[in-house]
Amino acid sequence: MTTTFSLEAIQAMDRRFRANLVNSLAGYKQPVLVGTRSAYGQTNLAIFNSLLHIGADPALYGLLVRPHTVRRDTLENILETGAYTLNYPSVHMMQPAHQTSAKYPREESEFDATGLTVEYRDDWPAPFVKEAPVQIAMSLSERLDIQSNNTILLIGRMNALHLDPGLIQPDGFAELHQANVLACVGLDAYYQPRFLERLAYARPDHDGPT
Amino acid sequence: MTTTFSLEAIQAMDRRFRANLVNSLAGYKQPVLVGTRSAYGQTNLAIFNSLLHIGADPALYGLLVRPHTVRRDTLENILETGAYTLNYPSVHMMQPAHQTSAKYPREESEFDATGLTVEYRDDWPAPFVKEAPVQIAMSLSERLDIQSNNTILLIGRMNALHLDPGLIQPDGFAELHQANVLACVGLDAYYQPRFLERLAYARPDHDGPT
Repeated sequence: MTTTFSLEAIQAMDRRFRANLVNSLAGYKQPVLVGTRSAYGQTNLAIFNSLLHIGADPALYGLLVRPHTVRRDTLENILETGAYTLNYPSVHMMQPAHQTSAKYPREESEFDATGLTVEYRDDWPAPFVKEAPVQIAMSLSERLDIQSNNTILLIGRMNALHLDPGLIQPDGFAELHQANVLACVGLDAYYQPRFLERLAYARPDHDGPT
Repeated sequence: MTTTFSLEAIQAMDRRFRANLVNSLAGYKQPVLVGTRSAYGQTNLAIFNSLLHIGADPALYGLLVRPHTVRRDTLENILETGAYTLNYPSVHMMQPAHQTSAKYPREESEFDATGLTVEYRDDWPAPFVKEAPVQIAMSLSERLDIQSNNTILLIGRMNALHLDPGLIQPDGFAELHQANVLACVGLDAYYQPRFLERLAYARPDHDGPT
């Protein structure tokens, strides 16, 4: 049942077909709404599917941004101000969250365009999404330029965290599924993950074949 | 219902509590089994939850690896040979896939220890997991050292792809859910995502509030 696609076959694919295939095969991702505000006060909100856990001490997350060859409001605002927010869309926010990917004119805020609500907390300069069950204030820590294709990895530090503490288990694990947080694949497919199990820390003497 | 955890509160958390919290808040991820073979022929298999889509043309994925301060078989094998494989675990592979995270002695292959089956294809030097519904041959393209915490981002190029072509939609989108591919959160929680919807390409004049 398995077919092999060689490097030559992958290179020969139609550009949009390959983009959909390679994006979707990167698998299940956490969509996040990235909230920023420009130096002159214009708010921006954009959905990203490239959140990467970098480390827990200090608490660092990465975000991949496409090459800075055209206007990129989120990237420019982060580089200008050093501040951004991560906001996790729940299932009932699917439509407006996705709609933030539309190319609005720079002077139009995606908050106004999609109906999601700006929220400011603790004087953090970047806006949060009031409807999001998890909100994280991030400050830019490092920028890495990827030579292979000119994309940019922004690494930020968790500066504050706002969520319902009932989601957090005694060992620190946050049950995102209890807040109906969305997962996504590629640029347009949304999923609701069903919790299966948390497995025990694996040791060599456990659970091997007999 | 929302509680705020300040930077000071996050820094003051118990180390393992914070690790679980920050890892799990990075959200839904695609677990992949990374197959490698050392220069002297020893196979290795390890589960990673840090797969990142870097670009589609060329087809590039990133993989975050923890600091090289202790033995890291996967990292060392990739740096030595330039070749690795990505194998996607389906729901019925959850237990052996997780078990590959145990610290086996270097001379013991996780394939033998977990019962997952080595498969070689098209003379690719790194081993695939025969049971995996998606198998990707990857060649190392770039290494980025992250200064913020000494983690390493390995960027590789898709060299060949093996999967059931029935998973691929006419526009290239691969329906991983049709193969019951697992999602994960943090280091130990596994999920089965339920497909909701693929949304249309967002344009400014669509779907705004009225």
